[in-house]
Amino acid sequence: MKKMNIAILGYGVIGKGVFEICKNMPNINVVKILERKEKFDPNYLELFTDNCEEIFRNKKIDLVVEVLGGYDFAKEMILKSIQYEKHVVTANKEVIAKDIEYLTSWANRFNVSLAYEASVGGGIPIIKNIKELKKVNKISKISGILNGTTNFILTKMFEGLSFEEALKMAQKLGFAESDPTADLEGYDMMRKIAILSDLAWDTFVDINLIKQKGITNITKEDVENAKLNNKVIKFVCESVKVDDHIEVCVEPKILDNTHFFNNVNNEFNAVILETYPNDTLTFIGKGAGSLPTASAIVLDIVDILEDRYLVGYQNKNSYKIN
Amino acid sequence: MKKMNIAILGYGVIGKGVFEICKNMPNINVVKILERKEKFDPNYLELFTDNCEEIFRNKKIDLVVEVLGGYDFAKEMILKSIQYEKHVVTANKEVIAKDIEYLTSWANRFNVSLAYEASVGGGIPIIKNIKELKKVNKISKISGILNGTTNFILTKMFEGLSFEEALKMAQKLGFAESDPTADLEGYDMMRKIAILSDLAWDTFVDINLIKQKGITNITKEDVENAKLNNKVIKFVCESVKVDDHIEVCVEPKILDNTHFFNNVNNEFNAVILETYPNDTLTFIGKGAGSLPTASAIVLDIVDILEDRYLVGYQNKNSYKIN
Repeated sequence: MKKMNIAILGYGVIGKGVFEICKNMPNINVVKILERKEKFDPNYLELFTDNCEEIFRNKKIDLVVEVLGGYDFAKEMILKSIQYEKHVVTANKEVIAKDIEYLTSWANRFNVSLAYEASVGGGIPIIKNIKELKKVNKISKISGILNGTTNFILTKMFEGLSFEEALKMAQKLGFAESDPTADLEGYDMMRKIAILSDLAWDTFVDINLIKQKGITNITKEDVENAKLNNKVIKFVCESVKVDDHIEVCVEPKILDNTHFFNNVNNEFNAVILETYPNDTLTFIGKGAGSLPTASAIVLDIVDILEDRYLVGYQNKNSYKIN
Repeated sequence: MKKMNIAILGYGVIGKGVFEICKNMPNINVVKILERKEKFDPNYLELFTDNCEEIFRNKKIDLVVEVLGGYDFAKEMILKSIQYEKHVVTANKEVIAKDIEYLTSWANRFNVSLAYEASVGGGIPIIKNIKELKKVNKISKISGILNGTTNFILTKMFEGLSFEEALKMAQKLGFAESDPTADLEGYDMMRKIAILSDLAWDTFVDINLIKQKGITNITKEDVENAKLNNKVIKFVCESVKVDDHIEVCVEPKILDNTHFFNNVNNEFNAVILETYPNDTLTFIGKGAGSLPTASAIVLDIVDILEDRYLVGYQNKNSYKIN
């Protein structure tokens, strides 16, 4: 049996999930975990280090899982891992959305894989399904509920809470950060729809060109009106390819309650793909959480281990974005 | 570029779809089509034959697509294709549900692939996703709306028609056969849930052991009652693994209208997987139709062509079925 030695960068919620799952995988061996000294796990002290060089220079390590979060340091770690000829699996949507071109060119140069299923939609295997589908199908439209925090808030508003009450509840339950701007204004979903669009159409979608409107202005009255008309309000991202341009937006939408998104509530995420000849395909799953996200990461590791990793993104098309 | 020469057995609705899609695939070459003489397409006469031996003995043909429908002849054709060392891609749920063990053992012996994504859920890539997911996840439950005809009938009943009116409409639109027993009594879904269960738990589920109840007794009153209580009636198949046994049933179920199945209407199909650690995953797509089904077939061909075909089913477990 082929085996793989891996290092995990970051021992937060997702890193812990990856470590737990890998313990049960006979062909994946966690060799090192990068974390600050105060967060070392006393039960596995021998695995921990706070020195990334120790990981890069370890020739036994085949693959690095980046689950540090944040941008600058995470990007540096991904790049260095590639340059030390290690495969990279990351959940980092910000780095992937901004630097997919740059990192892909380095990965190609060093002949390693760069996988990022966990960066969009938690446990939903949407990256993989797009990669597979596009071998036979043309994708014309992607719509998604791809932010659990805002979907939770809107769900609670439809259960009767005001925006402020729903936000507080989300923060109390740990679904929303103390500064929830990136979620509420849609910056988080802009990154995710950019990543899916890159992949679907082999082009780079600059997140700065995405039209965006947040959900902070939605009132109890908006919710009541929607209910009266058998509608629901969902915070969605949408990307449509028309001829030589792609229209991308993130905004709250009023949808019929017969829409597939209607019952996608709380922390669930969903993606609808319009394809030809396959027609409409919808994927729904847990959009966040330690284990669903970690499962997506470990599935990426298995793909690389079994030589089944599919190169997804290629920067070969140039479309106008608006 | 690696290329593959294929033969298509059967030039009905799905066979035509496969031929159409393959025309646009530079690495798939349709070499022969088996059909009765009176159904030969005059525009492609040189491709047609009514003699299957001509296909089996043609050493240039790498792969056979079986879309004949029916049971005995289709099974014989699949088996012979395997014995002539050709890969097989089939949409035949009856043959796969009954003979997966037998055919898999022959395929292993002749070192060819036997792929059957199109046998369940039309264009929904459910077979592939189960194969992939189970590398890291345990599946505990599968639920599905996997028959377009009955889902169409129930949808129309919720729009106000009686059972008889809805059935007539389905027959008029070509969604239901003149003898609709296999759909209405759930025999069609029994095959499909058996196929998914085989795969999820690496065991053989005998369709004769599946509990079954049809939809012919559902009345307008049942529908009205459901509506009054914010419920919906869906004809579903369900398979649950508990310890050393698997419970499988096909029956109409009364579901809350917040259920993911609530908006799966008309010819749409859906599958919900309960998994660990990934949690709940839902897939919705067109359950039938020429192009969605043909797309699933061509995706199977591409997998085999690229050496990405995953052996799914292994008969290694023995569970009690009830």
